[in-house]
Parts: sequence; structure tokens; C-alpha cells
Amino acid sequence: MSAVERLDDPSDIAAEVAAVLESFLRSKAAEFEAISPETAEIGQSLIAFTRGGKRIRPVLLWWGYQLVAGPETSPGTAARTGLAEAAASLELLHAAALIHDDVIDHSDTRRGSPALHRQFEALHADLGYEGDAEAFGVAAAIVIGDICLALSEELFESAQDRLGASIPAQRLRAQMRRDVMVGQFLDVRAEVIPLTDERIGARAWEVLSFKAAKYSVEQPLLLGAALGGADEAQLAGLTRFGLPLGQAFQLRDDVLGIVGDPAATGKPAGDDIREGKRTVLIAESLKRMSPEQTRLLASRLGDQSLSEDTVAETVAMLRAVGGLDAVEEIIAARHDAALSELDSWTADNGPAAFRLGEAAESRLRDFAQALSYRQR
Amino acid sequence: MSAVERLDDPSDIAAEVAAVLESFLRSKAAEFEAISPETAEIGQSLIAFTRGGKRIRPVLLWWGYQLVAGPETSPGTAARTGLAEAAASLELLHAAALIHDDVIDHSDTRRGSPALHRQFEALHADLGYEGDAEAFGVAAAIVIGDICLALSEELFESAQDRLGASIPAQRLRAQMRRDVMVGQFLDVRAEVIPLTDERIGARAWEVLSFKAAKYSVEQPLLLGAALGGADEAQLAGLTRFGLPLGQAFQLRDDVLGIVGDPAATGKPAGDDIREGKRTVLIAESLKRMSPEQTRLLASRLGDQSLSEDTVAETVAMLRAVGGLDAVEEIIAARHDAALSELDSWTADNGPAAFRLGEAAESRLRDFAQALSYRQR
Repeated sequence: MSAVERLDDPSDIAAEVAAVLESFLRSKAAEFEAISPETAEIGQSLIAFTRGGKRIRPVLLWWGYQLVAGPETSPGTAARTGLAEAAASLELLHAAALIHDDVIDHSDTRRGSPALHRQFEALHADLGYEGDAEAFGVAAAIVIGDICLALSEELFESAQDRLGASIPAQRLRAQMRRDVMVGQFLDVRAEVIPLTDERIGARAWEVLSFKAAKYSVEQPLLLGAALGGADEAQLAGLTRFGLPLGQAFQLRDDVLGIVGDPAATGKPAGDDIREGKRTVLIAESLKRMSPEQTRLLASRLGDQSLSEDTVAETVAMLRAVGGLDAVEEIIAARHDAALSELDSWTADNGPAAFRLGEAAESRLRDFAQALSYRQR
Repeated sequence: MSAVERLDDPSDIAAEVAAVLESFLRSKAAEFEAISPETAEIGQSLIAFTRGGKRIRPVLLWWGYQLVAGPETSPGTAARTGLAEAAASLELLHAAALIHDDVIDHSDTRRGSPALHRQFEALHADLGYEGDAEAFGVAAAIVIGDICLALSEELFESAQDRLGASIPAQRLRAQMRRDVMVGQFLDVRAEVIPLTDERIGARAWEVLSFKAAKYSVEQPLLLGAALGGADEAQLAGLTRFGLPLGQAFQLRDDVLGIVGDPAATGKPAGDDIREGKRTVLIAESLKRMSPEQTRLLASRLGDQSLSEDTVAETVAMLRAVGGLDAVEEIIAARHDAALSELDSWTADNGPAAFRLGEAAESRLRDFAQALSYRQR
């Protein structure tokens, strides 16, 4: 096995993917407008929506491909365009999930701007439309989410045409789509279950794993690797690295949803309390609470009208019982598990999924660090 | 060109497609339950939901394939399974569209049963869940619609693997998905536009063509034909037959939404009035109304709380001004246009897209008659 010396720079990947994405969306917007001029807002809203985001999934897909097929995919070739399209298709899948997620969670903001359903609600008022503005916003966001999902398929199909059809990649893509949606369903169910339900911790881990950890980290790596022609041992190695890292990534999200700095996260402080999310952090806190504290938390979780003071008091209680510390410990353990797999890719003492040069190894290590210990 | 003597019986096709669909959904339900036992309702609800329906799109896809590839696809072969899967995937695409449609339209019933979001709203109460039952129903229906759309992709991919990948079929599939969703967006917009808007007729035709006529009739035929390896002339012939027939089919839907028998349609009398649909029938009526009648209609259209008497009075007004007769005339003209293309496939006096034997021609003629002049 020849060593992988280099993985592309994340900001270069993000820029290339953003360019492919915008050009694809512009061509689709033109197709929509050929159907009717009244479709203009579909393209506009999707282009604006997908300009934001951390591009985590595209970068991981890209690296998954490079780890297997080698770093030397030259710009301008069909393979390079296909790789960028596959990466961009994950951004569209994610955008579709977020658009529907915000409708489901009644979220007002996304990435510091109004959520898509709120944008269309405002448009309704601006244009003097008739009927219920909120219902119009929700309807438009449901349909645009569907369109975004369909466009994600279309872009991935184009990528497969360029890279050569790969049955394993197609299966992984189907699995990824399925897992994030089933995870979302489990999340919807978990939020209406009493806090005293004995499966609350198990549920939180199911949601975390399927809606987030696999979908955000493990599966993008696997999908890129499959497109590059990975063998079973390579896919297994990427799972040993990507799954625990994905769990750390999402547990950090839980922490930031409780004690994140609003200026950095773009979300109000303690947002997950008002939203009533049943996270692993909540489950870990419940394990450590008195019946009275549990009753208090149950009365507050999911109450959109909580005052800032009550939210702050609730956060203080989660901290005091040790829920936050417990999650920090799990993050550290999951992060270390991912790094120990990564270590085996650089050591020279036995069979490993990959052989990495120093630069490639340090890229992955830095990225893992940023996922597990980010501030936003 | 050898003549097509036979097209399979619609009820045989429907039964074969239903069996493939149910077996696919059962295997997917088992995959979901391996993720978590709490997913059981996803599979159950989709299996129940897709048991109904007229199977129009699967039959048309099947015939499109048979018209091009010949009727002799033997049961048990990969091609036959692929054909049934492609047909079944259209049922899933349609189910996904209906599930989201019912959320958007706040519909209570579908195919004589509670709409999916209402089923989950009821489940919330039955299981003693916490929080807002209606919001839970909507959330579950949004996610299950997404899952259904993803499953439709998966089944179509499997069909393509069996039938051999076809770029034209893949493009048609993408176009079909796009058109129905863009049509749905236009429908959402059309419903909030004042009735006095000058583009109201143009909008109604855009919605009718893209959300319904192409998607329900023309595109299933084209997709089946493309999977069978159709040439350009064959595809063009199917459009000349399928597009006007699809328009007649949807215009009949508009008529049934106003004057259909509730016992036959499974929907309340005059349902489209309460829903506020801006159909071609409404546009044709508006053309013939006095300003006072227009104001009256505007005050009623979309008012969910209208009494049965007021609905009946409104229907009488649409009839009195000649809106219903006008639509019947358009239906007849569109139907005749489709039949005149069909005639060219049986005559022997020049180039035509197909050469049909008597039995095949009479299948298509009977089906067209049923689409344009059905009672439910």
C-alpha cells in the first residue's frame, strides 16, 4: 500500500464545492423559471440557504475519496468534477434536512438568518398575499425542502455518471439518507415521551447516532471512500475512526445547545431547553437528579415561553448535578477512540486500513480536534 | 416496426405492483426496526397508505415499456422484476407527494381514511404523549413523507440496476420529480393570490400541467418507454397522446372536486371550495362572473368553516355562469386530441410512433376514456 502523503486543504475544498453547488443551483433555477416566472424564489432561497454552513460533510467525503484513490485528482477532469458534485450533493441533502427540521422544531432562525419558513411568511406579508401567512411559510418550506432533496439526488446521479456507477456507493448513499430520516423520526418521537420513560437514555443515543454521528462524519467518509473504490478493510477502518468522532461531534453540539455563546452559535442561550430536545446531556443529567429536580426539568423542557432567567437557572441545575461534566467525559473518550484508530494508520507495526504521511495525518487530527472541541 | 398486439391487463399490473411494493416496504420496515423498535409505525403507516390508490401511474409506466420493448416480459426474469419495481417506485413518489400535500392543505382525510398527520395526531393522544398533538402529527408526516420519497429513489435505483442503467430514463425521472414539486410550489403560491390577479388563468394551467397532467400521465408513459429503450419519435408520440390526456384527467379532477359525489370520491361535497383551490374551473368561472359574483366567490374560497348550504350555493353559481360547461368542453377537446394521436398508431397510412394491434389499441382507448370521464 502506498502512503497517502497529502489531503486537500479544507477551505480549498469548501470553495470548490461552493462553486459547483451555486452553478448547479443556477442552472436548476433557470429550468424552474422556464416552467413559470413565479418559481424565482425557489432558486434564490436555495442559493442563499446553501451559502452558509461549515461544509463538514463535503470535506469528509473528499478526504474519504483521497484516502482511497490518492490525492492526485487533477482539476478539470471528469473525476474531479464528479467528486465535487458528490460532495455538493451532501450539502443539498443536509439543507433539505435542515429546512424541514426548522419547520418541525418551529425554529425562527438558521445560520443567523430567519429560517426558510419564516422568510416565506415575511414574503407573504410583503407581497400582500391572502390567507394565513404562517401556513404559507410552512407550505413553501415543506415543498422547497422536497425540491432540495430531489436536487441532491440529481447531483449525486451526475457525480456517479462521471465517476463511474458504484453499487456500494449507491447503497451507502441510500443508507445515509435513510439513517438521517429515521433518526429525525426518532427525534420527533423522543420529544413527546415523558422524561421518566426508562428508555430515555437509549433513545437519546439512537437519535444521536443515526440523525447525527453516522450521517455527519462516518457516512460522508465512507461514501467518498466507496466512490474511490474502497475495500472492506478500508471501510471498516473509516467506521472505527468516523463513528466515535461523529458521536463526539454531536455531543459537542448538545453542550453548545446548552452553554454555547449565542454570539458564536447564532442561537439563543439555552436554546435546547426551550426546544425540549431530549439529548444525551439531558439523559445524563436526569440520571443524577432528585425526583423533585426531574419534575422541575420536566415542567420547563420544551416550554417556548421560558424567561432568560429561568433558562439560566435550568442550565445551572444541569451543571450542578454533573450532567455537563459527564458529557465532557464521554466526548473525551469518544475523541480518544477515534484518534487511537488514526494512530494505527501512521504506525508501522502491523496491518492497518491506511498508511498516512505526516501532512495527511495532521490534517485529520486537526479536523477531529475542531469537531470535538469547537466553540460553535 | 412489428405491431404491438397486447398490453397487460390493468388489474393484473396493479396486483403485481402492489405485491412488489408491499414486499419492499416490509424489508425496509425490518431495516428501520433494526435501528430502533420505535420506528415500527413508519413501515406500518406506509404499507397501509400505499394499499389504496388507482395505480394509474404504474399501469402507464408498464404500458410505456411494453409499447417499446414488446409485451413479452416473462414473470421471474430480472427485467420483469425491474419493471414492477420502477412502476412501484412511482407509487411511492406519489404517496410522498400526497402525504406532504395533505399537511400543506390541512386535509383531514385521504382515500377515505384519516390523513397521515391526523393518524399520528391520534396516536399522540392514544399513547399519552406530552406536548402538542397536532404539531406531533405534522412533524411525523413531514418526516415520513421524506422517508417515502427516499424509498422511491431506492426502488427506482434497484429497477435501473435490473433493467440496465438508462441515462434518458434517469433524466426523465429527475424531470418528473422536479415538475411535480415545482407544480406543488406554484399551487401553494396560487392559493394566496387575489382572485382578481390577471395571471390567475395562466397560473391554474401551470399548476394543472406540471403538478398533475405531465406527472400523472405523460411522464409515466415516457419513463416506461425510456426504460424499454424508446427512440425520440416514440417519446414524442407518447407526449402527443399523454399530455392532453393528462390535462383531461386533471380537469376531471377539478370537476369532481366541485360536483363529485362524496360517496364515490371519498371527499366532502365541494371540497375544493373550502380548500380554496385556484383551479382552471375557478378561472373559467371567474371569466364569466360579474364583479359582485367575483367578490362573493373571493369571500368564500378557502374558508374552511363554510356551511354545506353555502358550499352548495357557490357550486350552483359556478354552474350557472357556465364555468362547469366550459371545463367539460375543454375536457372533450383534450380527450379528442389524445385519441387522434392514438388513431394514427392504428392507421396504416404513413409514419407513426407505434403500430398497435386491435387489443392494444382498445386497452389504451378504454383507459383514456376512464381517465377523462371517471366518476371518482
